[in-house]
Amino acid sequence: MDLKRINISNKLVPDNYLKLAQNAQKSRETEERELLEKRKLPINGWTDDHIEELLQQLSLLDSNNFPKKAGVGEREARIACSLVARRHYNFGHGIGRSGDLMEAQPKAAGSTLIANLTNCLLLDLIHEMGIRSCRACFLAPLATGMSLMLCLLTLRQQKPLAQYVVWSRIDQKSCFKSIITAGLKPLIIQPKLDDYGSLSTDLFAFSKMVQDVGVQNILCFCTTTSCFAPRNCDDIIEVAKLAAEVAIPHLVNNAYGLQSTYLTHQLEQAQRLGRIDLFVQSTDKNLMVPVGGAIIAGFDEQLVRNVAKAYPGRASSTQTLDVFMTLLSLGRSGYLNLVKERKTNFEYLRMRMREFAKNNKETVFENKSNPISLALSLKQLQDYDLDLTKFGSMLYTRGISGARVVNVAEQRVIEGHEFIGWGTHHSQTKTAYLTMAAGLGITKAEIDSCFEKLKESWQDFLKSSKKK
Amino acid sequence: MDLKRINISNKLVPDNYLKLAQNAQKSRETEERELLEKRKLPINGWTDDHIEELLQQLSLLDSNNFPKKAGVGEREARIACSLVARRHYNFGHGIGRSGDLMEAQPKAAGSTLIANLTNCLLLDLIHEMGIRSCRACFLAPLATGMSLMLCLLTLRQQKPLAQYVVWSRIDQKSCFKSIITAGLKPLIIQPKLDDYGSLSTDLFAFSKMVQDVGVQNILCFCTTTSCFAPRNCDDIIEVAKLAAEVAIPHLVNNAYGLQSTYLTHQLEQAQRLGRIDLFVQSTDKNLMVPVGGAIIAGFDEQLVRNVAKAYPGRASSTQTLDVFMTLLSLGRSGYLNLVKERKTNFEYLRMRMREFAKNNKETVFENKSNPISLALSLKQLQDYDLDLTKFGSMLYTRGISGARVVNVAEQRVIEGHEFIGWGTHHSQTKTAYLTMAAGLGITKAEIDSCFEKLKESWQDFLKSSKKK
Amino acid sequence: MDLKRINISNKLVPDNYLKLAQNAQKSRETEERELLEKRKLPINGWTDDHIEELLQQLSLLDSNNFPKKAGVGEREARIACSLVARRHYNFGHGIGRSGDLMEAQPKAAGSTLIANLTNCLLLDLIHEMGIRSCRACFLAPLATGMSLMLCLLTLRQQKPLAQYVVWSRIDQKSCFKSIITAGLKPLIIQPKLDDYGSLSTDLFAFSKMVQDVGVQNILCFCTTTSCFAPRNCDDIIEVAKLAAEVAIPHLVNNAYGLQSTYLTHQLEQAQRLGRIDLFVQSTDKNLMVPVGGAIIAGFDEQLVRNVAKAYPGRASSTQTLDVFMTLLSLGRSGYLNLVKERKTNFEYLRMRMREFAKNNKETVFENKSNPISLALSLKQLQDYDLDLTKFGSMLYTRGISGARVVNVAEQRVIEGHEFIGWGTHHSQTKTAYLTMAAGLGITKAEIDSCFEKLKESWQDFLKSSKKK
Amino acid sequence: MDLKRINISNKLVPDNYLKLAQNAQKSRETEERELLEKRKLPINGWTDDHIEELLQQLSLLDSNNFPKKAGVGEREARIACSLVARRHYNFGHGIGRSGDLMEAQPKAAGSTLIANLTNCLLLDLIHEMGIRSCRACFLAPLATGMSLMLCLLTLRQQKPLAQYVVWSRIDQKSCFKSIITAGLKPLIIQPKLDDYGSLSTDLFAFSKMVQDVGVQNILCFCTTTSCFAPRNCDDIIEVAKLAAEVAIPHLVNNAYGLQSTYLTHQLEQAQRLGRIDLFVQSTDKNLMVPVGGAIIAGFDEQLVRNVAKAYPGRASSTQTLDVFMTLLSLGRSGYLNLVKERKTNFEYLRMRMREFAKNNKETVFENKSNPISLALSLKQLQDYDLDLTKFGSMLYTRGISGARVVNVAEQRVIEGHEFIGWGTHHSQTKTAYLTMAAGLGITKAEIDSCFEKLKESWQDFLKSSKKK
Repeated sequence: MDLKRINISNKLVPDNYLKLAQNAQKSRETEERELLEKRKLPINGWTDDHIEELLQQLSLLDSNNFPKKAGVGEREARIACSLVARRHYNFGHGIGRSGDLMEAQPKAAGSTLIANLTNCLLLDLIHEMGIRSCRACFLAPLATGMSLMLCLLTLRQQKPLAQYVVWSRIDQKSCFKSIITAGLKPLIIQPKLDDYGSLSTDLFAFSKMVQDVGVQNILCFCTTTSCFAPRNCDDIIEVAKLAAEVAIPHLVNNAYGLQSTYLTHQLEQAQRLGRIDLFVQSTDKNLMVPVGGAIIAGFDEQLVRNVAKAYPGRASSTQTLDVFMTLLSLGRSGYLNLVKERKTNFEYLRMRMREFAKNNKETVFENKSNPISLALSLKQLQDYDLDLTKFGSMLYTRGISGARVVNVAEQRVIEGHEFIGWGTHHSQTKTAYLTMAAGLGITKAEIDSCFEKLKESWQDFLKSSKKK
Repeated sequence: MDLKRINISNKLVPDNYLKLAQNAQKSRETEERELLEKRKLPINGWTDDHIEELLQQLSLLDSNNFPKKAGVGEREARIACSLVARRHYNFGHGIGRSGDLMEAQPKAAGSTLIANLTNCLLLDLIHEMGIRSCRACFLAPLATGMSLMLCLLTLRQQKPLAQYVVWSRIDQKSCFKSIITAGLKPLIIQPKLDDYGSLSTDLFAFSKMVQDVGVQNILCFCTTTSCFAPRNCDDIIEVAKLAAEVAIPHLVNNAYGLQSTYLTHQLEQAQRLGRIDLFVQSTDKNLMVPVGGAIIAGFDEQLVRNVAKAYPGRASSTQTLDVFMTLLSLGRSGYLNLVKERKTNFEYLRMRMREFAKNNKETVFENKSNPISLALSLKQLQDYDLDLTKFGSMLYTRGISGARVVNVAEQRVIEGHEFIGWGTHHSQTKTAYLTMAAGLGITKAEIDSCFEKLKESWQDFLKSSKKK
Repeated sequence: MDLKRINISNKLVPDNYLKLAQNAQKSRETEERELLEKRKLPINGWTDDHIEELLQQLSLLDSNNFPKKAGVGEREARIACSLVARRHYNFGHGIGRSGDLMEAQPKAAGSTLIANLTNCLLLDLIHEMGIRSCRACFLAPLATGMSLMLCLLTLRQQKPLAQYVVWSRIDQKSCFKSIITAGLKPLIIQPKLDDYGSLSTDLFAFSKMVQDVGVQNILCFCTTTSCFAPRNCDDIIEVAKLAAEVAIPHLVNNAYGLQSTYLTHQLEQAQRLGRIDLFVQSTDKNLMVPVGGAIIAGFDEQLVRNVAKAYPGRASSTQTLDVFMTLLSLGRSGYLNLVKERKTNFEYLRMRMREFAKNNKETVFENKSNPISLALSLKQLQDYDLDLTKFGSMLYTRGISGARVVNVAEQRVIEGHEFIGWGTHHSQTKTAYLTMAAGLGITKAEIDSCFEKLKESWQDFLKSSKKK
Repeated sequence: MDLKRINISNKLVPDNYLKLAQNAQKSRETEERELLEKRKLPINGWTDDHIEELLQQLSLLDSNNFPKKAGVGEREARIACSLVARRHYNFGHGIGRSGDLMEAQPKAAGSTLIANLTNCLLLDLIHEMGIRSCRACFLAPLATGMSLMLCLLTLRQQKPLAQYVVWSRIDQKSCFKSIITAGLKPLIIQPKLDDYGSLSTDLFAFSKMVQDVGVQNILCFCTTTSCFAPRNCDDIIEVAKLAAEVAIPHLVNNAYGLQSTYLTHQLEQAQRLGRIDLFVQSTDKNLMVPVGGAIIAGFDEQLVRNVAKAYPGRASSTQTLDVFMTLLSLGRSGYLNLVKERKTNFEYLRMRMREFAKNNKETVFENKSNPISLALSLKQLQDYDLDLTKFGSMLYTRGISGARVVNVAEQRVIEGHEFIGWGTHHSQTKTAYLTMAAGLGITKAEIDSCFEKLKESWQDFLKSSKKK
């Protein structure tokens, strides 16, 4: 609004009152201009109403919100339910165009702008978190599993005859299924189990697999950074070196690794010393938005672009909107604060866990390359006759969510592949354990409350069970 | 809220005033109970505030909203930006579980409930629209192109060696790309062009292709119902018969066909007389929600379930929420009204287009099996020296969105396949034309305004150009 | 947002897509400019998101929303609960200044602007509705009763010794109480009851009262336009003539009269031919906003201003916000449509009531000067032994709200004044009756449903009772 | 929602997931039940979505939200603009009934419940803040000035011939105007000025005034607690003793005094040892809601009720809603925390001000009975030739709001009464000064920023001016 016009003809407001307001308005305009020109995270977060004002202005640029429009297409972004329109700020056209997820949508200049700008801000964030060599990224309105699959399918377009994915075992279904659903065949590399129960990448097995199967038959290596302890982050630097050496693409599942400077450092080094083609991270875990999006990033702009192009058709703009709003709301300093607090809380969690272990004759696994998740042995409980899953229920009923009780005996066949010791990432695991993670946004109070409830559950378990 | 408690001890409100309010409350509770028990579309739409109240109650069932929780997992659905939390009614956990999109999410009973209920309501809607034999469906948080790809990948799991998709040509990129990105090979069947410019399925070519390529090498047939005139709805009944005969799966792209009882009737008949395995429709076009979701439906429950299982990982619950809210808001009668109005407006659009054609020496193509889109020849304009795309711009600048000016000369190579006459679905199209559609939600006023602007643009074009 | 900046340096959106969006943006800016410059009702209503965008921009002009402020006053419009801030669009400072309700608030340029602009729009509306001579008005954040009291107290400042208000009886408490609470003494003029049960102003009694009490002792005449049938609108033209003749101020309670062109015509004529000082109307009844505001208007700018000045301290800006939003949302055409529909529905209500009367041997009172409310005799029911209030309950329980069953026997002492036949506006009323009104926003469907339920209740009453 | 019904017939959600959700639901229901039964502030604040859920449920109890209603009254709480309906949670009927602000509104059981419950919570808050003897209070949808006027008019109904209000001078217009507009006459008691510039109640002048004017002619004493330094809180204990002795009602303007335990203690003691009839406090200053409401409280239930009864007509429910939401959101502990922080920040403000005074050869006035506002002498600046108001502008332009520069020379005639030294509360003030207050919600950061800017402004002033 042009403040100078307000008092044209007759005064609505005394001029001097307006002058002060003008300063406030200018400061907002400066923030907007900087965002549009620099396309970097604002240093400080924006206020809620500033974010909403920007969204309203941008949504006006989409054709479904043009005041005088006659829509005779098959898809006009009409929204039937006003609550739905409202929660999407009247954005209806989604993003992308049939050919390409990153292409501008002619009917939706506003949505296009937000999509492109969000990708710029995400690249800035990736740089800020330490992956300085990253060249391009985009927000895929798909959760991590689907995004990994899209990467695999894109890689396959370049190497249509290669059917194998060499995969460092991690016992989490969705990554594994993304290989299967893509119509590819996984070659499973079991991690090495050291004396302390920690699991690391078996590099030798990687090399051997390449020799055995042949470079031309291997579509890519697939490694994982963030994972449940006692599995460590894969040794992606060494895998990357091998990938470079044998010229095999390397896809990294960085699910919740963007929040950890340790893991981003691994990625940066791996690329500098070897080869990473694409790495994928989930938006919900790293940016605290609802589940549903992933950031697909890489070190070669064209390859990243190709992944976007492989996406057939338009897509939801909801994930973009969530991420855009969150990044504006946090700003750089807000995000870095969260990162710092998480690290502090991880240390606190470890301290509390060690204390608990000491008091109960258990151990905390020493997994040095896992900066997020920790595992506590459950040796004592294993000796009792009550099923360990009961212990898990006890925790959950008390409000501890996310802690996982992992038993050693489980065996599972998934899509025709047998996994011994499912859940432990290894066929030889002997000791049951409990994992806990310090994810972005965790608070000290939660950790305190968690150990209080853990203690109660522990006692309850011992009471309601007896030694085998 | 238990009204009886309000006046315990001392009165806050006179009892008789409360009695009346109780009736209102009861009527709401009845609506809720019926929804949860019958799992069918409510006859009449719900009010906005009732919808929001239900969502708030359901969101309380998700663990991230439990008052006393300690989250020590890697993913706890914490939401950083309060605006984002608000617009998602505090739902953060998405839907599905790593194994399966339709599986219950243990941390999110509320989200799970909405997802399951929405699938029930959608099945009811599909039945209501005439596809009575449909056995199962689910809302995929993927737009149509990706959903088709997921169907193809699922079909492939059962027939891993078949690489070909026999596809009745339709010049719209996203369906074609879904075949390519899936790593499959399209076998393109060009439609037949009749004397009036109308395009129908070339059944003979279908049979011949099967003979030439071999049943064992063909993954499936892929046909399309809703499309731009003058292409007609594929003759899916006959293709279905062939599919049944030769035992080849049949996937139907029903992009915006759920809104037309003519097209749903075709689907129902095709299944009764032949074979359809899966049919996919977009939620934005058929349910007036923002772009981003599709309904994947079929006649065999297990197959539909397999598609859901092929989806790796959790997924966004946004599309579910939009559809759930919209279905409650419209109710059965609201939706059927929209369907009826659309049909009336389609007739009106055709009448206006014929009138315009008559006044300007043009023709409306006679495509009898297309109940949504119409095409008007642009013979006169083809004779002028100005590029026809200028005419398209003139329309768009005046606010006509969705009308497409289709020129005859275009040639395009897409993913290595050459398309002559791209945009016209046929290599032999001689006459340029303009398409318009009467999609769900269109109004008579829009059509009137459209023809007013069309007239202006027509005159402008003739004025600013001269005969070749 | 300056669209030209969007594509500075690198393109975020193709230029030609932006160009179209620019037109949409311009059309919005034009609406804003016209509003601020002309200060008249927009011809057509604004969209919701345009209204919200304007509010967000204006709220930024209030000091509590300045980004860098240090508040060391006793009142800084801090808002503790974010839901409250949100529902008030972050406006917190209210309107007015300790001295004067219409004075600009230095800390709140945005609130001041809205308040002044709303008063301009209301004056335009009053003119549009036919009271062309009206010179000034303002929105008081007080319901009608308090507003009348403020008018009386203001008039009293000019004539401190006059204690009497000559008041044409209307049996509605709040107007009467406004006289009492102001510390004044009512002189009650009972209306004349004609043979058909209709009630009109007793002009002779007015003149006589002036003679008896003395001009110097009479603060003002107080008349009422809109009221429950069978009372008519007071004959304000004649009272105004008398007021002019004897130089006594004349205050008109126009509670819900602004919605009727008949009543506004009376006001305009009364002022032209006689004297009206101030007239007051409620915002909820005339503008369909929540209860809480009134428009105080008059024909002398200074007098209206004096009323605003008599208001001690700041006041809520909520009523202003509601009215501002509603006027923008409806626009002139929206409001005039409501006015027209109401009139049509009033005719329909009368037709249905006459029909019902005929079928049940009752009469509709012929009150020619009441264009909103109608009364139906309840002679038949009076002969039964069941209390008539039961009949009222029957109606209400069935969802008929606002219909009033008026019994003849009631007697009531209010603030020391005895009213015989309370509720009927007259001590001699013989026939009980039922009143119904066609207020702004009523629908034909409501009237239909009302008579259906009335019929049921009538039968129920006769069944559950017997003739006396 | 009845969770048990969810899984009737077929399962929508696994039972064990629902069990956990049930606990969450129960804890919410317990909070609701306790609120409705105990009618006291909840110990801890409620979440936003719980507050909104309760409001939605309550709004359903109002007749305008009944699903099947036929409104044939003149006032049916129809809301034209959906944004307005939304921001009021569909509450439209206001509170009260024509006779009485505290009476139940038959059409609005929900609104009535909220109004009554809010009054209960406010009484609990008043007790909690230390005024244990308080017997009744209600929220008036009027700012403080109007509320004081309503109190005066109510007192007058009991003593119709008494015209005088003995008023301890405070230079703030709205309290003074409330006396004038009520049609009463102020008798102004100037405070005593001590050697340190501090201002205290002149008790002797009070007694003398009673003797001079006569008890029967004095309507009431009017004193003020919270005020700008260097005026102190009136010595209300002694005035109350006198009031008891001579049997004159005593009205206290406790504008922003509820936030200070020092001031509430004065009120409690004054009532115990003497007489206070009514005390009034603003909701915006004490509860951090938008301007527009006041709490009228007293020690005699019937008198407080009489004030409510004097209010003619219904009233806005907006203020009630704001206060209700805020009290639920803060809870007791939230409010007491704010109170504590304010006190700490007041001490910090004083420390910083003393420091600044020392560095600039100024003094902080020693006003011991003012726990909120502080005054800093401006002796140095008085000697310069630039107008002191310029200094005020300098501060305001820098974003310091609420600081007041008070010059000594001002003289003002208000409603016929001459005030010498207007703004200083005394005719003899010699030294100009600057006041600052630590109001509820102030932050340490604001104070720091304020002194930084003060320093800058001070230097600017000295630079741009020269000694007289």
